[in-house]
Amino acid sequence: MAKEVSEAGEFSAKDYHDPPPTPLFDMEELTKWSFYRALIAEFIATLLFLYITVLTVIGYKSQTDVNKPGYDACNGVGILGIAWAFGGMIFILVYCTAGISGGHINPAVTFGLFLARKVSLIRAVMYMVAQCLGAICGCGFVKAFQKSYYNLYGGGANELSAGYNKGTGLGAEIIGTFVLVYTVFSATDPKRNARDSHIPVLAPLPIGFAVFMVHLATIPITGTGINPARSFGAAVIYNNEKAWDDQWIFWVGPFIGAAIAAFYHQYILRAAAIKALGSFRSNA
Amino acid sequence: MAKEVSEAGEFSAKDYHDPPPTPLFDMEELTKWSFYRALIAEFIATLLFLYITVLTVIGYKSQTDVNKPGYDACNGVGILGIAWAFGGMIFILVYCTAGISGGHINPAVTFGLFLARKVSLIRAVMYMVAQCLGAICGCGFVKAFQKSYYNLYGGGANELSAGYNKGTGLGAEIIGTFVLVYTVFSATDPKRNARDSHIPVLAPLPIGFAVFMVHLATIPITGTGINPARSFGAAVIYNNEKAWDDQWIFWVGPFIGAAIAAFYHQYILRAAAIKALGSFRSNA
Amino acid sequence: MAKEVSEAGEFSAKDYHDPPPTPLFDMEELTKWSFYRALIAEFIATLLFLYITVLTVIGYKSQTDVNKPGYDACNGVGILGIAWAFGGMIFILVYCTAGISGGHINPAVTFGLFLARKVSLIRAVMYMVAQCLGAICGCGFVKAFQKSYYNLYGGGANELSAGYNKGTGLGAEIIGTFVLVYTVFSATDPKRNARDSHIPVLAPLPIGFAVFMVHLATIPITGTGINPARSFGAAVIYNNEKAWDDQWIFWVGPFIGAAIAAFYHQYILRAAAIKALGSFRSNA
Amino acid sequence: MAKEVSEAGEFSAKDYHDPPPTPLFDMEELTKWSFYRALIAEFIATLLFLYITVLTVIGYKSQTDVNKPGYDACNGVGILGIAWAFGGMIFILVYCTAGISGGHINPAVTFGLFLARKVSLIRAVMYMVAQCLGAICGCGFVKAFQKSYYNLYGGGANELSAGYNKGTGLGAEIIGTFVLVYTVFSATDPKRNARDSHIPVLAPLPIGFAVFMVHLATIPITGTGINPARSFGAAVIYNNEKAWDDQWIFWVGPFIGAAIAAFYHQYILRAAAIKALGSFRSNA
Repeated sequence: MAKEVSEAGEFSAKDYHDPPPTPLFDMEELTKWSFYRALIAEFIATLLFLYITVLTVIGYKSQTDVNKPGYDACNGVGILGIAWAFGGMIFILVYCTAGISGGHINPAVTFGLFLARKVSLIRAVMYMVAQCLGAICGCGFVKAFQKSYYNLYGGGANELSAGYNKGTGLGAEIIGTFVLVYTVFSATDPKRNARDSHIPVLAPLPIGFAVFMVHLATIPITGTGINPARSFGAAVIYNNEKAWDDQWIFWVGPFIGAAIAAFYHQYILRAAAIKALGSFRSNA
Repeated sequence: MAKEVSEAGEFSAKDYHDPPPTPLFDMEELTKWSFYRALIAEFIATLLFLYITVLTVIGYKSQTDVNKPGYDACNGVGILGIAWAFGGMIFILVYCTAGISGGHINPAVTFGLFLARKVSLIRAVMYMVAQCLGAICGCGFVKAFQKSYYNLYGGGANELSAGYNKGTGLGAEIIGTFVLVYTVFSATDPKRNARDSHIPVLAPLPIGFAVFMVHLATIPITGTGINPARSFGAAVIYNNEKAWDDQWIFWVGPFIGAAIAAFYHQYILRAAAIKALGSFRSNA
Repeated sequence: MAKEVSEAGEFSAKDYHDPPPTPLFDMEELTKWSFYRALIAEFIATLLFLYITVLTVIGYKSQTDVNKPGYDACNGVGILGIAWAFGGMIFILVYCTAGISGGHINPAVTFGLFLARKVSLIRAVMYMVAQCLGAICGCGFVKAFQKSYYNLYGGGANELSAGYNKGTGLGAEIIGTFVLVYTVFSATDPKRNARDSHIPVLAPLPIGFAVFMVHLATIPITGTGINPARSFGAAVIYNNEKAWDDQWIFWVGPFIGAAIAAFYHQYILRAAAIKALGSFRSNA
Repeated sequence: MAKEVSEAGEFSAKDYHDPPPTPLFDMEELTKWSFYRALIAEFIATLLFLYITVLTVIGYKSQTDVNKPGYDACNGVGILGIAWAFGGMIFILVYCTAGISGGHINPAVTFGLFLARKVSLIRAVMYMVAQCLGAICGCGFVKAFQKSYYNLYGGGANELSAGYNKGTGLGAEIIGTFVLVYTVFSATDPKRNARDSHIPVLAPLPIGFAVFMVHLATIPITGTGINPARSFGAAVIYNNEKAWDDQWIFWVGPFIGAAIAAFYHQYILRAAAIKALGSFRSNA
């Protein structure tokens, strides 16, 4: 094993074979209960994700409202607590649903995995529909529980903050989603087990941390989307003009970021690149 | 293995067999020391859980009391620190007691596992009694250590916050407990090892995080129960009318949430559903 | 395996044998380099522990000093950050030194493991000496780096807070150390691997979290000792009368707490109890 | 296995063989795609590290600016959030790149591993170049996204704080980097698997926590470097005289700290010491 570690950087064709790409259309999966079960799991997970996180956002804003009697700037869980809510929920939901649906809970993740041919087109589209419906229902619960607060404190919707232009917002969403989807690809790389036996496969924890980190950095800019279902669900329930105007940023940015991450992982970091650069190696 | 991952969503009857349901009444377990040892472990764990968490709540409220000299709104561990106290204690206590009693430390978890036939009725009832006694003793220690503060700062009791109606409180408890018990079921699913070998079984960590997350979201609404023993123990020692009036919410809500989680896991996500929908598959 | 899980609470004599108790005096270990290496590792680890944590405490107090220009109550890492510093350092130091010295870094832990006959008397005494010397040096570095701040902001010493009597402080230290040492025993239980294969052995993480939790709860009461070397080292370098007057609490409390945890683990939770209660079982 | 645990402190020549030291110059690695892929991975990882962390720093400073309308001292993620950003990013980036490049992301780590002969001189130099270029680009993104804020709030550059002399800053960097590199050596020690099977190899998590801890302690002193690429990249983009004047501290300190950690691990804690002290043992 010591030997294996010392050549960890080296490609070895023997210890691992990539699974073949998933077909674009796999009609057979539509006949299986496991497919519908996966859709239900994605729906419920995205619902819980939006419910807990938006409730945390609304609760924090209500507790630190300068116009309320007994105002106390330090009350509430803080922006750090909000970042934990997003990251921590992704940790536990990926942990819970990974075995059922793969634990995407995010159309950008689904899109990245589709580009890498890990899921079929039908599965990708249906997952995104389930995620968006789940997000709408999750925000709906928050609104139902505290209607006046929900509208008063912005409904947890993603909007570009004052002082930032659209290009900055788009860039922040692209890089933020890149961090997330790159972590997802690294964490679920089937080569890890075979080759990097000294790195335990804690998959859901670093994925949750990636979400946590990106929120720490970009909450001041866009409120942090990096998940189109999250942005869409909040926009539908909050239904505010500004939120709809900026909505495209939270679809285009994450999809571009996920595509770059898929390209980076498949063509730079993984075997695909080695094959593409076969001539480079034989010249050496 | 790569193949196994690619069909991770698929049911395979070969790699796993459900253990048979635990009988409702198992008189033999009453004759074993391990049963009484488990009761002691649940009692001590719930005692430590309430002691540390309620002490944290009281300490925070005392340090940020606007009426005390040297008032400083930012003193204390903050609501984020309180949420960590609840989630972190569940992490370490589940870790410590999982091998002895299963690490329930919560009547709602015990109820959910009973509904799924993982524990017998006798064990479930005795666990709940041990948990409630432990919670009472844990709060008793806090009160003994700082009697004046304990009563002054609300005794860590769960009460519906001003401005929320009973339906909202009940809903928050139901969904919050669903998040927790769903994570417990996912984390302890005996199929994980057999099928999802790429997902490590970190059981106690996501369970602790689930508790942490729910506290971030619902402390402003109910103070977050999702554990009837925690609510009951604090109510017994604090012994305040409002706490007793709202007590039913913290039993009915968690039990309903746990029941829904048990149903969701057993009938939607697990094999039970596949058998129930056998006809659906054969039509495909 | 499913079967093993379902009888997880049950004692099985076949899958595990306790290592024999360590002899009280083992002269042979004095002749081995690994013994001296372990002392060095304990010394360095306790030095780093006190250096990082006391520096964090002094930095926080300096940044939130109401008498300094530009006072800002929310500056600094907060009490939550201080609690993380203590818990996080124990996590990484136990992780780093576990394979060299067992990763005690705390005379109370060493005392508990000695009572459970996991380490010899000579090793226990020498570890405690190394830990206390390391703690003194760690605090010495902090003082050398910022002499005026160090004395001004209390030197990170443990003292009973105003308004708490000695009995409360002693009780808080006893229960706090019990939580820590109970977690240490649970995490390092050699039976875990054999029996509880569904619970991964993350040993250093829950131990670090136990320290984190106890700090959240008892910083307002005693500043949280639960580690006599930490309290002693800070007292030596700060050398303040009040710190010395209260010093006994931070030795007696942790040692009592560790002894109770050792008793609880060895006689209630572990096989020892089963043997002691053999007659009870045969009556069944 | 129980036996192995009980003699965990003991050196055993049988269960493990050190890999041979990496040659200083290994021309063959220059011919391999995996070498260039590793450089790309280090570049991208350091870019993302600086982007997320400096964006968090700037966002926090902008949200708590006393001169801005709607000033609120408790806004932003706090210094605790900044420390999390640094530690958490190292956790996920080490996790993602460990299998590709070893996951250094820090010239001090590369230097320490070079001293321990784990990487060749060529690889070490090229890694450092890639890391510095990545850091410059990461800070460049932050500046491009919010130019006015970036300069206004100090550009995330490392500088000695007012009231601390250069010796203190250097000392803080040396010990801080020692903590980090010591953790890296402990986490990646190939003996861990063979000998300490009761300690799981969570490598990236404690490494991330080490960075988190050091930031909690030394942000008030130097802003915390412990990573020359991080300090250099921020200095290049911020391009402020004070930042350049103090720059040497953030190269000399980390390199000394890494060297001490490499010495401590190789000659005190590891087999090298046992061989060096062979005479000591045979006298025993």
